[in-house]
Amino acid sequence: MLKVNEYFDGKVMSIALQTETLPATVGVMEPGDYEFGTSQKEVMTIVSGKMDALLPGSEEWQTFTNGESFEIEANVKFKVRLSGQTAYFCTYE
Amino acid sequence: MLKVNEYFDGKVMSIALQTETLPATVGVMEPGDYEFGTSQKEVMTIVSGKMDALLPGSEEWQTFTNGESFEIEANVKFKVRLSGQTAYFCTYE
Repeated sequence: MLKVNEYFDGKVMSIALQTETLPATVGVMEPGDYEFGTSQKEVMTIVSGKMDALLPGSEEWQTFTNGESFEIEANVKFKVRLSGQTAYFCTYE
Repeated sequence: MLKVNEYFDGKVMSIALQTETLPATVGVMEPGDYEFGTSQKEVMTIVSGKMDALLPGSEEWQTFTNGESFEIEANVKFKVRLSGQTAYFCTYE
């Protein structure tokens, strides 16, 4: 049975999987503003939609769309903002 | 609240979303063989992993990997085969 994760009262949901090399999740975020904390290095790829991200050490929001990725180091917080439902794929190292 | 779909005793799970233009799902399939039926035209994109597909009208299995897509017309059946956990993104027209 696959594992479903739920965050922010179900506004962010994901399904866990194991890729050939790394643990990962694929999920959907509802429109909104969210802050996440990392426990491992993460690579976030936008599958569908558009995600604005405020990454650690940056004072400017960056926009990522279909097929684009960004990395977040372990043990930091980062913010994302979405204007529409967005699908993402995230790996954990 | 996002909607989670479950098929084949939870071996295939997906989360529904609305893209800018089309309804879609993002999901994970456990290793195995599955037959799906379409009610609409579908475009299936592999997000992570590898999927062998036997498409309608074809007698040969084709392999699709990360970033590759295939189309399936409405109201047909098609088979897929997976050797590892595979993440996919599917739109419905």
